[in-house]
Amino acid sequence: MSDDTAGLERALASLLENYNELNASYIDELDQEPTPLQFMRYVARNRPFIIRGGANNWPAYQRWNARYLVETLGDSPVNVASTPNGLADAVLSQDGKQIFVEPLEQTEPFADAFKSITARGRGEIDGPVKYCQTQNDNLRGEYLALMADVPASIAFAHVALDRKPDAVNFWLGDGASTTALHRDNYENIYAQIRGKKHFLLMAPVIAPCVEERSLPLARYENCGDGGDEKADYGMKAVVQQPVQYVPVPTWDPLKHSKPPNSLGEHLTTYKVDLEEGDMMYLPAMWYHHVRQTGGSEGFSCSVNYW
Amino acid sequence: MSDDTAGLERALASLLENYNELNASYIDELDQEPTPLQFMRYVARNRPFIIRGGANNWPAYQRWNARYLVETLGDSPVNVASTPNGLADAVLSQDGKQIFVEPLEQTEPFADAFKSITARGRGEIDGPVKYCQTQNDNLRGEYLALMADVPASIAFAHVALDRKPDAVNFWLGDGASTTALHRDNYENIYAQIRGKKHFLLMAPVIAPCVEERSLPLARYENCGDGGDEKADYGMKAVVQQPVQYVPVPTWDPLKHSKPPNSLGEHLTTYKVDLEEGDMMYLPAMWYHHVRQTGGSEGFSCSVNYW
Repeated sequence: MSDDTAGLERALASLLENYNELNASYIDELDQEPTPLQFMRYVARNRPFIIRGGANNWPAYQRWNARYLVETLGDSPVNVASTPNGLADAVLSQDGKQIFVEPLEQTEPFADAFKSITARGRGEIDGPVKYCQTQNDNLRGEYLALMADVPASIAFAHVALDRKPDAVNFWLGDGASTTALHRDNYENIYAQIRGKKHFLLMAPVIAPCVEERSLPLARYENCGDGGDEKADYGMKAVVQQPVQYVPVPTWDPLKHSKPPNSLGEHLTTYKVDLEEGDMMYLPAMWYHHVRQTGGSEGFSCSVNYW
Repeated sequence: MSDDTAGLERALASLLENYNELNASYIDELDQEPTPLQFMRYVARNRPFIIRGGANNWPAYQRWNARYLVETLGDSPVNVASTPNGLADAVLSQDGKQIFVEPLEQTEPFADAFKSITARGRGEIDGPVKYCQTQNDNLRGEYLALMADVPASIAFAHVALDRKPDAVNFWLGDGASTTALHRDNYENIYAQIRGKKHFLLMAPVIAPCVEERSLPLARYENCGDGGDEKADYGMKAVVQQPVQYVPVPTWDPLKHSKPPNSLGEHLTTYKVDLEEGDMMYLPAMWYHHVRQTGGSEGFSCSVNYW
């Protein structure tokens, strides 16, 4: 290690320590929605908060059970992300090299996708892990029939930021789906409707800790039945041609509680569990790793506003 | 240069370029005070703004002329910073080494200090440059008699930040005083009452450009008349014992419009001139270099809220 690098590491360690000293070691929990000004103070400090039961009065919280969702959406076509292991948009080792794998995306009737997800969630079937996670404003697109059950925008954020949401997304999956550590360039209001979500949150300042690498972009593809020992449920990760490299945190906080570098010991991870009806503000550029647990009917579903 | 350092410089250049692309190349000018929420949006984005004429309805704007100030404060003792050249809290080269020099601080009757400052400002006398700049909440201390002429707090900031100002400061000097490039860890509301202030502003992201060094702390001291060829007006910069090192930007934007390093070309400097009655919000940690011009009576005075 050169002197330059050692000096840089000391500076980064000091930055992380200062952040930890200047900020609370927990995430604030509010018992009601903040005013726009109170919200803006969190935005200004780039700090998350949770509102326990913040979505309890949404029609979605009352209505969204298996029967209602299937009756409302029926056989309308939806985009479903499939992986053999629940790890979409994640780092995979293949032939001794790391690649970044996106899920196989397929369109299928909602009722079929919902049946697969919940049957798998209740342990009744085996097979690929399916996750409805398009994140393309899908609640005002393929799930429009559900939009009436959630607010058109989150009033405190809409007033504070003086803009309507760019996207309102519906998420549906079972406990097998995990979202790898990543960050988004959006202020995010997240509401858990059914099941639970388990977040590991980290402030943007920890960027030097996450072992970001440029990895080749791959995608799961169907490669027919058997014959290839690398195929799971007929799926195989295929590096896309021409090769595109994407920057990805390669540290997996589930495998190693601290990143494998000298800065790891200075890192603070905030654990947040959202129960049914809880809301969370996740500031732009915060790292998050997300697991979920199905609710009483075997599925987890959420709504978020970007 | 090692590969590590070259990689770091590329990353920093890219950071500066991204900042420039994502932010306006000018400072917003408002024609009235913002609401607390509008203000908080600027705080959240860490961006300054100017309110032209924002202090025009303050009693200070109507009242503060030479006669009123001298009549109100009379011979009450005030702290005055003196330097031979107007460069207080600045980098000085002495015996081939850089040092950081604080001014000589002396207490004198306000009327005397005011007379020196304005006579020098009108070019009637020569001598040390005096600047009333204690920045220790002096408007609620030695200048308390003037506090009734300014708001106790700036309403939009008080409501938005949910706190009263930590300090309200009065600044009085002539055109010879310059404040070197520095930054403060405070949200700052600045009002120009008499004369003009000429700011060079730079966002916190430019920190790697400013050639920060740890320099020995010195202070101007009176060393009697003549005899020492380094003395100006009987003043000499003396390194304090035991030696303390303070971190200081050594780049002087008046001498070199861009800093002498490879990052300088990516740096954006915002020029802001405040006229009598103008207000400015300067976010915490923004770099600023400040010059001033005396008004019709030869002095410049300002008020700021931290």
